[in-house]
Amino acid sequence: MISSACFKLPDQFSMRKYLTAAIMLLTSSLYAQQKNVKLTSYVNPFIGTGAVDNNSLAGSNFPGPTTPFGFVQLSPDTEDKPDNPASGYDYNSHTIVGFSHTHLSGTGVADLFDVLLMPATGEIRSVAGDAKKPGSGYRSAYSHQEEHAGPGYYQVKLKDYNINAELTATEHVGLQRYTFPANTNGHVIIDLDHSLDKSRSYWSCKIIGAEIRVVNNNTIEGYRILTGWAKLRKVYFHAEFSQPIVSSVLFSGKRGNKNTAVINGTNIKAALTFNTNSKSELLVKVALSPVSIENARINMKAELSGWDFDGIVKQTSEKWEKELDKIRIEGTPVQKEIFYTGLYHAFTQPNNMADVNGDYQASDLTIKNAADKKHYSTFSLWDTYRAAHPLYTLTQPERTADFVNSMIRQYDTYGYLPIWQLWGDENYCMIGNHAIPVIVDAILKGIKGIDTDKAYEAVKASSTLNHPGSPFSDWEKYQYIPEDVQSQSVSITLEMAYDDWCVAQLANKLGKTDDYQHFMKRSSFYKNLYDVKSGFFRARNKDGQWLSPFNPLKYGGNGGNPYTEGNAWQYFWYVPQNVPDLISIVGGNKAFTEKLDQFFTLKDLPGEVNGNASGFIGQYAHGNEPSHHVAYLYDYAGQPWKTQFYVAKILNELYNNSSSGYSGNEDCGQMSSWYIFSAMGFYPVNPASGIYMLGSPVLKQATLKQGNGKTFTITTKNASAGSVYIQSVKLNGKNYDKTYITQNDLAKGGTLEFILGKKPNYKWGTQKNALPPLESFSGTN
Amino acid sequence: MISSACFKLPDQFSMRKYLTAAIMLLTSSLYAQQKNVKLTSYVNPFIGTGAVDNNSLAGSNFPGPTTPFGFVQLSPDTEDKPDNPASGYDYNSHTIVGFSHTHLSGTGVADLFDVLLMPATGEIRSVAGDAKKPGSGYRSAYSHQEEHAGPGYYQVKLKDYNINAELTATEHVGLQRYTFPANTNGHVIIDLDHSLDKSRSYWSCKIIGAEIRVVNNNTIEGYRILTGWAKLRKVYFHAEFSQPIVSSVLFSGKRGNKNTAVINGTNIKAALTFNTNSKSELLVKVALSPVSIENARINMKAELSGWDFDGIVKQTSEKWEKELDKIRIEGTPVQKEIFYTGLYHAFTQPNNMADVNGDYQASDLTIKNAADKKHYSTFSLWDTYRAAHPLYTLTQPERTADFVNSMIRQYDTYGYLPIWQLWGDENYCMIGNHAIPVIVDAILKGIKGIDTDKAYEAVKASSTLNHPGSPFSDWEKYQYIPEDVQSQSVSITLEMAYDDWCVAQLANKLGKTDDYQHFMKRSSFYKNLYDVKSGFFRARNKDGQWLSPFNPLKYGGNGGNPYTEGNAWQYFWYVPQNVPDLISIVGGNKAFTEKLDQFFTLKDLPGEVNGNASGFIGQYAHGNEPSHHVAYLYDYAGQPWKTQFYVAKILNELYNNSSSGYSGNEDCGQMSSWYIFSAMGFYPVNPASGIYMLGSPVLKQATLKQGNGKTFTITTKNASAGSVYIQSVKLNGKNYDKTYITQNDLAKGGTLEFILGKKPNYKWGTQKNALPPLESFSGTN
Repeated sequence: MISSACFKLPDQFSMRKYLTAAIMLLTSSLYAQQKNVKLTSYVNPFIGTGAVDNNSLAGSNFPGPTTPFGFVQLSPDTEDKPDNPASGYDYNSHTIVGFSHTHLSGTGVADLFDVLLMPATGEIRSVAGDAKKPGSGYRSAYSHQEEHAGPGYYQVKLKDYNINAELTATEHVGLQRYTFPANTNGHVIIDLDHSLDKSRSYWSCKIIGAEIRVVNNNTIEGYRILTGWAKLRKVYFHAEFSQPIVSSVLFSGKRGNKNTAVINGTNIKAALTFNTNSKSELLVKVALSPVSIENARINMKAELSGWDFDGIVKQTSEKWEKELDKIRIEGTPVQKEIFYTGLYHAFTQPNNMADVNGDYQASDLTIKNAADKKHYSTFSLWDTYRAAHPLYTLTQPERTADFVNSMIRQYDTYGYLPIWQLWGDENYCMIGNHAIPVIVDAILKGIKGIDTDKAYEAVKASSTLNHPGSPFSDWEKYQYIPEDVQSQSVSITLEMAYDDWCVAQLANKLGKTDDYQHFMKRSSFYKNLYDVKSGFFRARNKDGQWLSPFNPLKYGGNGGNPYTEGNAWQYFWYVPQNVPDLISIVGGNKAFTEKLDQFFTLKDLPGEVNGNASGFIGQYAHGNEPSHHVAYLYDYAGQPWKTQFYVAKILNELYNNSSSGYSGNEDCGQMSSWYIFSAMGFYPVNPASGIYMLGSPVLKQATLKQGNGKTFTITTKNASAGSVYIQSVKLNGKNYDKTYITQNDLAKGGTLEFILGKKPNYKWGTQKNALPPLESFSGTN
Repeated sequence: MISSACFKLPDQFSMRKYLTAAIMLLTSSLYAQQKNVKLTSYVNPFIGTGAVDNNSLAGSNFPGPTTPFGFVQLSPDTEDKPDNPASGYDYNSHTIVGFSHTHLSGTGVADLFDVLLMPATGEIRSVAGDAKKPGSGYRSAYSHQEEHAGPGYYQVKLKDYNINAELTATEHVGLQRYTFPANTNGHVIIDLDHSLDKSRSYWSCKIIGAEIRVVNNNTIEGYRILTGWAKLRKVYFHAEFSQPIVSSVLFSGKRGNKNTAVINGTNIKAALTFNTNSKSELLVKVALSPVSIENARINMKAELSGWDFDGIVKQTSEKWEKELDKIRIEGTPVQKEIFYTGLYHAFTQPNNMADVNGDYQASDLTIKNAADKKHYSTFSLWDTYRAAHPLYTLTQPERTADFVNSMIRQYDTYGYLPIWQLWGDENYCMIGNHAIPVIVDAILKGIKGIDTDKAYEAVKASSTLNHPGSPFSDWEKYQYIPEDVQSQSVSITLEMAYDDWCVAQLANKLGKTDDYQHFMKRSSFYKNLYDVKSGFFRARNKDGQWLSPFNPLKYGGNGGNPYTEGNAWQYFWYVPQNVPDLISIVGGNKAFTEKLDQFFTLKDLPGEVNGNASGFIGQYAHGNEPSHHVAYLYDYAGQPWKTQFYVAKILNELYNNSSSGYSGNEDCGQMSSWYIFSAMGFYPVNPASGIYMLGSPVLKQATLKQGNGKTFTITTKNASAGSVYIQSVKLNGKNYDKTYITQNDLAKGGTLEFILGKKPNYKWGTQKNALPPLESFSGTN
């Protein structure tokens, strides 16, 4: 639905000034089916930006431009006080309030939205009015017919003002081009109060201080310092305009000050006027820094010293082309659109928070300097350790080292690794310590540039030092997490056991036998919450008693219940470190696959489903992460055709190329990474094992260009909605009937051929040697 | 009452370990009346620390040690959640909750109280209990009989634990010596949650983040980041103990973690245990930095690398001796106690916020470096521009340049000069822009080390750029502040006109004739609020109408009323830049002095006196600053004997050496500076004019040691409570009957002799030439 609108050239594109951008889009769209077509042309940034009806969901993505893993992510906000969707942009809204420079992609919680700019015409009116009232401020109507987006470029016609607004971005700088209608003076509003809804009780967002300064006729500088989902953010900016500011009004609250040099306050805005009578085109570039105005200036000087809007669009688009080219696929146009938009979403974060000179804000809120000019943040680890980080280790080995080293810096100043790190700042969102699988996986896969000893020190500290959500002394004492010690105890017990298995693997690699044994023991503590009677993992108190009454369909949220954003059904499956033991606990393959069958068919939804659960197939909820590996579990129990069935079903039914293309929050790349792996035919059920379980690919071909110079190509014959079952597989030309491939297979380079059919081959993948080893990492070193 | 307790040696002082400190105190107290006695011996830090009965007031001072103008001000807190008194210590409390490292002296609003330590014995219990409940936490009883304080030293016996606690401090480091009872293990509690009462609605105090880290057996580090009266404060610390930590519990909320390495959270505490069985004495030193833990370490290394408690007491005491020696006086013991305690309070701030390496947090919350290692803050300017800063220009010329340069740094990053600056951060407390008189006065008095052109740029910007409380465009448009534009309009109009006069003086000195004329015109705008009918300065709206009904006794607070913490009576007198015009407006000397007489005798207090007004003589309220110059106004109107009468009355009746020694908030040195000037016989009614009006000295002799090497000596004959009237005056041996002396007189060095008597000499000071010039600054350049 949106895919064509995305690249269709609007009438006004015939105007000379849009030509360059138009040519670029042309190149990358009209010839999209040809061999040398640009991969960026497949990216549709509107996927995930809004539900299409009451039964669908938004991924909470934003459509505006960013560089890969860039700091500035400039995008339209449709909400005055963004909260839901967390991206600030709802495809179903009919108005835009402005363009702010920082966004989160796919999260369940909102924050950022820094330095909102909005062009306008007409009388300057108070911009401090009640923003709750729709149409207040400088909000303008727009329509999707006059809105277009691709990697590095966004355009919208603001109908209220007849202004065409175009956006592009470098790593630290947002560049906008406004084309005002003839014979009017143009205004640009700068709003430093625009932020996460301050009335929400969950996180109290408060602007602590802000400044806007008119430095000269062409330059505005300032900052805002605020507390929100991130405890403390300092956002400094330097803005330059291509035309001189003719007059200005700086607002503090409702009080406006004409042509004054500076305004300080907590609710401050500026209305700048330009003589667009004589020249209808006004460009503005805004550099951000989390450190200082001086650094924002340096960032701009380094990245965007001129005014070549089309050149920046081209440059940013080329950066994306290079990143998307890590995986070259063949498939249907829609598959390509979903796949490359997924890759685009996966590469939208983590974000490099370091200024071009390497300065960054550490977790202790001091300013430090990174010699390599890299300090990544936005680590939504509970989501992304599952498939997004394994995707990065495959496609972004250098950045993976940067991610790991950035996370280890939190250990340095904070004592333990990130749980959910935003803007360099721990926010303890969700559970577990899933920086551990990310780091262990990176090291075991031989990613270069990580200090292994230091990494182990950080991993071990994060596994032994009590901290919020992780009462390790009780973990060791009770050998499970008692619910009366720590809420969400079942989910934490299961995920902590997995993290412990990862620690053990790294200890083993480093020859730390005692640690290996200690953490291997801890990795089995999940057993202590298995209730044979109910057949579920179930909460116990310190006294060992099971919590009653017990209803495996009852949902928990983020506290006050043993299960995190799910129920006992959904959490039952979380023993990725030892699926054979999970099978054995239930009573063997038959009981296990029957339970899986029940899981995928039990439609009896309780009234109190947690809001994060969606994308249901029975109790399976693809809209939230606890389910993500479950379809692959049939592989371990002698029924790989059911993995193939459900994986194909999810690929075909729970992803599409509409604004509601995801079945829940996209979650910083995790939802997309599930698609990217699964569409190619494999998925890391245990993300730190170097093992990928085979599913049912939908792509005709996929070629992975790995960091080591080797390529690995997957081809699929007979893939279609009705033809999802593996008939046979060939690895490097030889018949292959294991249910998994290894990192080693990928790293060596080679080919994997799937031959699919309409009916299951019940024999394939069921032999004794079909199952992956439990522990021996099959990586490259 | 407190004076003797302050220096009396307690029994336990005979113990060897107290000997050095004891000897020092001995030296400085027992021989206090002798010639070579130490001036520090006169300082009684308990003055101002608490009301003695329902009719008296606390100055809101704290008794703990600090260096002159030092950053660390280590003092006992009697309140769990300090608010009132703002110092955190109430002399009437019977319990102490601990010793925190930063305090405000004499303010009406509380903040700081960073890094509270408390020694204890017994079982470790949760320190996270309900601190509202008296006796919760580790609170201990104490008595003033076992409590002693002097410059650089504080001691108290904590009765609940039988622990003797002694405190001293360097600029950035607090050093404590705890003597535990025999045969017990000692604990030290570190409380990073202790702060300004978080429930108060006026400023919401919130800990944004905090950390405590056990670095090794002897070292604890951490920080807390919080918002309060100061928008954002970052407090990093490095602490070392003289004995090894045997065990620890780190608390986050109510959850305690034994022997863990680090705790992060918003309500965190530590309980450390030491083996004080074998050695009863435990020392702990805590270095602070507003920049980083690393800087806290550097601060400690530079200032307090060893463990010589007595040596630090001696060193800090000697620093105070040097500062107090700027004015050497003769008088009664009580006069000396009030005077030198006043000087001590005046030199307690502004505080040098720069680390020893020069790093400091600027007003835009970035970290900058001061080459001279000085960055002062705590500028309570609405109070201190009146007499405290004029006292600094006389006695602290080098620091005055540092103060001015530090204030100008706010202009650099913030656009205008401080109004009330705390921890480097503008808080807009009170009204006016009284950094201007401070800077103008410093320049006109020839203080070296100020960039005059830059200073004028800052002064002019701060007088033209609209900012909170200062709507200059309306000021220029209406030529008064309309109450419907800006509340507190009468007070702001009067104080703004005075600040404008100061700008004009600096413009004049720099030959900026247009500016001079412009600001001189603005300095007369007070006339536009004079209501002939009522005979008061009275509020008008934008339409020019007087606000009705009008009651000159009705008080305003800090908004919502035309008068600031006062009424029309108290604000009537605020035209220090042109008292002759004020006299003329009323109808001449007779009408003016009659109005003054009425002011000092009108006892009819309205029911709604503002809480800041106190120390009444009629409507005169010495407890708040608007009245401070008024007693000197008779000098201008031919009745200097009434100035002498009321000044002597205030000196003798509204200051004493008890814990209730001030008639209101001491206000960062302003209350004390009034005493210091007035006790010597003169006072700067217009603090930027270089003119001091003569009053009625109470000291037998005072010798000012000025920064230029010249001394100026004032002697008084026949001063006593009954003998307050000037009979004659000699300046440098010659009869002198002007009602003022000039900065030039002081700067040249010389003598001023007062001969007082029991009855007025109605002729003295009433000749034509007795009055000071209006504009010609009589300074040294």
